[in-house]
Amino acid sequence: MRTYLDWNATTPLRDEVKVAMREAMEISGNPSSVHTEGRAAKMALERAREQVSLALGAEGADVVFTSGTTEAATMVLAEKGIHCAPVEHSAIKVWCEQDLAVNGDGIVTVIDPGRSTLQLANNETGVIQALPDGLASSDLTQAFGKVPFAFNWLGLTAGFVSAHKLGGPKGIGALVLKKGTDIEALIRGGGQEQGRRGGTENLIGILGFAAAATAAQRDLDSGIWDRVTAMRDALEARLLAAAPGAVIAGKGAKRLPNTTCILTSGWKGETQVMQMDLAGFAISAGSACSSGKVRASGALQAMGFDDMAAQSAIRISISPALDMDQINRFADAWESAYSRWRDRNG
Amino acid sequence: MRTYLDWNATTPLRDEVKVAMREAMEISGNPSSVHTEGRAAKMALERAREQVSLALGAEGADVVFTSGTTEAATMVLAEKGIHCAPVEHSAIKVWCEQDLAVNGDGIVTVIDPGRSTLQLANNETGVIQALPDGLASSDLTQAFGKVPFAFNWLGLTAGFVSAHKLGGPKGIGALVLKKGTDIEALIRGGGQEQGRRGGTENLIGILGFAAAATAAQRDLDSGIWDRVTAMRDALEARLLAAAPGAVIAGKGAKRLPNTTCILTSGWKGETQVMQMDLAGFAISAGSACSSGKVRASGALQAMGFDDMAAQSAIRISISPALDMDQINRFADAWESAYSRWRDRNG
Repeated sequence: MRTYLDWNATTPLRDEVKVAMREAMEISGNPSSVHTEGRAAKMALERAREQVSLALGAEGADVVFTSGTTEAATMVLAEKGIHCAPVEHSAIKVWCEQDLAVNGDGIVTVIDPGRSTLQLANNETGVIQALPDGLASSDLTQAFGKVPFAFNWLGLTAGFVSAHKLGGPKGIGALVLKKGTDIEALIRGGGQEQGRRGGTENLIGILGFAAAATAAQRDLDSGIWDRVTAMRDALEARLLAAAPGAVIAGKGAKRLPNTTCILTSGWKGETQVMQMDLAGFAISAGSACSSGKVRASGALQAMGFDDMAAQSAIRISISPALDMDQINRFADAWESAYSRWRDRNG
Repeated sequence: MRTYLDWNATTPLRDEVKVAMREAMEISGNPSSVHTEGRAAKMALERAREQVSLALGAEGADVVFTSGTTEAATMVLAEKGIHCAPVEHSAIKVWCEQDLAVNGDGIVTVIDPGRSTLQLANNETGVIQALPDGLASSDLTQAFGKVPFAFNWLGLTAGFVSAHKLGGPKGIGALVLKKGTDIEALIRGGGQEQGRRGGTENLIGILGFAAAATAAQRDLDSGIWDRVTAMRDALEARLLAAAPGAVIAGKGAKRLPNTTCILTSGWKGETQVMQMDLAGFAISAGSACSSGKVRASGALQAMGFDDMAAQSAIRISISPALDMDQINRFADAWESAYSRWRDRNG
């Protein structure tokens, strides 16, 4: 029996999402076709768009479906010379000037909001930023479904989200644009998505995304993540008690309810991931997208951690699907691995 | 009971695809994660890639999963000044110099293969091109699964395919590249797809695509499309007998087994689509992607048809799911609508 503690990498599908996707499999038409089958597909597509918009607090804004955050970010950021901080996900950083200052808690200072992008929550540390008014864009991927926000109240021109971080399928997401924002399409052709994103729509994925967004919003409203915060706090207390020299990155900042990034300088994060995997627990060292690469996290280095500390980081990202017993069993396993490491290196 | 005669716009999901996608819904990991769940997802992804590669006759070539042909084409064609003919799909034409000559049967003459793109089969007329050796790229979307070919024998550098034309889901496809071909990623970030296409992979879609490709190849090998050709020929004979002044576009060329583009000059294609829709038949006037636009097909105009003829075009694209009884019922409905039109306009 395995325990999945890598919620920020990706989430299993929600039951509601499976139902919605199975139903979507029976829709045969192309949303661009004008006949009965096409119009039925188009209606399902537009209903899904409304659902996602509502869950995002983006009523009246434009929700453009994309293959995920990476594509949405490319559409807005590519070749634009936008400023960002090194704490951003690689999908953002790859297009930006990484010149914004980051403090020890991971908080970013934005100088020119209209020419900057800033994530709402960090994937590795869970640190939540206060977005400055007039910000050009924000990666909302990790925040969506975990903390309450409304796109329309963030003062953003553009936001990026992915379905697979909130119980939806991988490979579908959206670019959310303030009403009336003009962008040039990256992928062109058939004029889908009001000419902003060509290509026949991933209808099954989109309907799964809509179901996930609605369910995530309902869970958030019900306070389900408060229980997660309590579990996370209990976990961190246990880990720090066992390893008094360890550091929780961003602990002084407001963070996502589910994310713990713990550094035990000298004990390689990758080794910990492998040991915990063998013990039945899925965790990660940094983001999934940079897994397998032998370099320290740029986010942690920007927060002032040295190479050895940064390379010791592991991310434990938990979820409402877990209970305290599973959290404690993980803490037991990690503490025992830590003791063995300390005994060998003490 | 409706009859779907718009197979080239999109196809319903095959049963094998539904099974594969339902199974894929249970894979919880991110293919980029290094733990057990991540490695299981990665294995499923790579198995799917092999299946698609095998079905395409592209063993040893690189199959890069994209959101479909439109994205794959953008990756290869955008801002490159590649030559094409006006018969290409809008997803291709939007990026190219449309300066290649087209004859009355829709056959294209390529001057500089290394700087040109040419579709293998046309979406509107079904006309099949003999691809010149050394061709830079080809839109294989409509040919894949309907006529036998092997990517490795076409002499191409790049090919584009979409799953939803062969019984797979919408929103997933591939860019197929001759081994060793370098391309710059359009969507960047996490380094997925060997750095050629960033973003967490649409795993459910990809596994559905693989199941569709395998099933389509099996159907093709079994000769199932020969029966479709016979139905198509019988249909065309009936339509031409009823409307002697009508013309089948590309009839003199080699064509897909399932596609009939018939022009009845003066009788608007859109009107026919609506009348047939009300009678229970889904057909189209041109490609789905240009549906709703009030202009004549560029492909038909390039073949020498005048505006009035081109605007009268309808596309009937049939499938192995149909039987001769359904085809005859459609021909009955069309003939009766044609008689009414002729009587009013005679």
